Amino acid sequence: MEVILAEYLGFCYGVKRAIKIARENADGKSNTLGPIIHNPQMVEQLKNEGVGVVENLADMKEGTIIIRSHGVGPQIYQEAETKGLKIVDATCPFVKKAQLSAKKLLEEGYKVVIIGERNHPEVKSIFEWSNKEAIILETEEEAKKLSSCQKLGIVSQTTVSGERFKQIIVHLIDKASELKILRTICTATDQRQSAAMELAKKVDLMLVIGGKNSANTTKLAQLCQNKCKTYHIETAQELSPKWLEGIKKIGITAGASTPGWIIREVQKKCQTILEK
Amino acid sequence: MEVILAEYLGFCYGVKRAIKIARENADGKSNTLGPIIHNPQMVEQLKNEGVGVVENLADMKEGTIIIRSHGVGPQIYQEAETKGLKIVDATCPFVKKAQLSAKKLLEEGYKVVIIGERNHPEVKSIFEWSNKEAIILETEEEAKKLSSCQKLGIVSQTTVSGERFKQIIVHLIDKASELKILRTICTATDQRQSAAMELAKKVDLMLVIGGKNSANTTKLAQLCQNKCKTYHIETAQELSPKWLEGIKKIGITAGASTPGWIIREVQKKCQTILEK
Repeated sequence: MEVILAEYLGFCYGVKRAIKIARENADGKSNTLGPIIHNPQMVEQLKNEGVGVVENLADMKEGTIIIRSHGVGPQIYQEAETKGLKIVDATCPFVKKAQLSAKKLLEEGYKVVIIGERNHPEVKSIFEWSNKEAIILETEEEAKKLSSCQKLGIVSQTTVSGERFKQIIVHLIDKASELKILRTICTATDQRQSAAMELAKKVDLMLVIGGKNSANTTKLAQLCQNKCKTYHIETAQELSPKWLEGIKKIGITAGASTPGWIIREVQKKCQTILEK
Repeated sequence: MEVILAEYLGFCYGVKRAIKIARENADGKSNTLGPIIHNPQMVEQLKNEGVGVVENLADMKEGTIIIRSHGVGPQIYQEAETKGLKIVDATCPFVKKAQLSAKKLLEEGYKVVIIGERNHPEVKSIFEWSNKEAIILETEEEAKKLSSCQKLGIVSQTTVSGERFKQIIVHLIDKASELKILRTICTATDQRQSAAMELAKKVDLMLVIGGKNSANTTKLAQLCQNKCKTYHIETAQELSPKWLEGIKKIGITAGASTPGWIIREVQKKCQTILEK
């Protein structure tokens, strides 16, 4: 019996950095605007360390506002400044690059397209940086229907897979006389997805750990489901000993916003059950 | 019995313009550098009107040098100026745009790619404007093998079909962090090809008229061959009455460098044979 971790799993660079920044500003008067990452357990832990969460700037009168990893639009920075709040920016540098790429394309006269999930906070933030003028494309069908124009400028959500990016762009090649594609994909997602699928092929059961509100964790679970029996859990508590009956090899992976201590707890619990 | 002309055929804008410019400079002392267009009959006619052909600038000591529709590199302009020749530029404006697009991409720091036929004089001229640094891609295989880089800038030969352009670009999407595609395709080729194929489906025989050295005429003949019996001829003299035996509908198309008088001669000869 064996418990195997995926080659790439858990915290990505941007998440690690955001949490470090939040901790450096944990003074009991600082808040993140929305959960800093899509992991309820980590958000809860930060609250205990002195970093709260507000849903709106209107809920804050003073102190430090921490911009979360997914980023926000330029208006939020202005509003926070007007209110006299201290602004600490924990936006993932890759997301920041996507935001500024959208802004640059707009300034250069391109009609801006964002490839990604319409309702994801990161995509919403990139959209804000395009002066709310960008067209968001989620599916190939939407890309096919896009009307032609002179200059089309394309960016993507950082967590889009390289394969998906290509599938959508194919339909945009003949939509403009000038096409500028800024590849704002972060490799962390592709790495985690490839490693998870590779592992899922070799094991009898996959445990995918991470926030139920985390898009990238949910995607990992979907991909693994095609290869073997898969459970998406947030914590070790959810893991039922029954799941492991008759199982010889267990694979573990975790989303980019899943802290290492939760991964270690799940790993430990699996070993304890298997050793019984 | 019926002779039907393709909806689009013969001289394109750039060729019409180049011949007009050549005629305006027909003074017995002017020469084009290489044949002005890929049509031996038209080149011969221009010779009779006072426009000669030289293969090299070294062959000219004085007079006017006419730059042909396919264009040339910047060195030729410099050499001609140094020699004290009068320069008349009959480069097709669409080709000129492709040349300057390659130059601009190079100046903006892109690794330049030209999609087109390596040995076509137009592609050679675009290559010259990229400071001879561009990579020329003819096939999907070549595109697949291209190594990745930071910034990739793409232009194309003006006569590449939209479909071919797309087939090659698909393999370049994930080759760079930044991709700028300048669609330097001229619609004349696509129009002539679509019209020819449409017509070839409805007739028993296709006559494709144009220079044997004309790439776009040869391509038209290849496309028609897949639909019905097809002959590629340069003049009415080549047309054999035997070909029309038992034929009810004849389709005619012609390359972008084929003059109207040759098309009319072929049309007339067909009707004469059919009326016998």
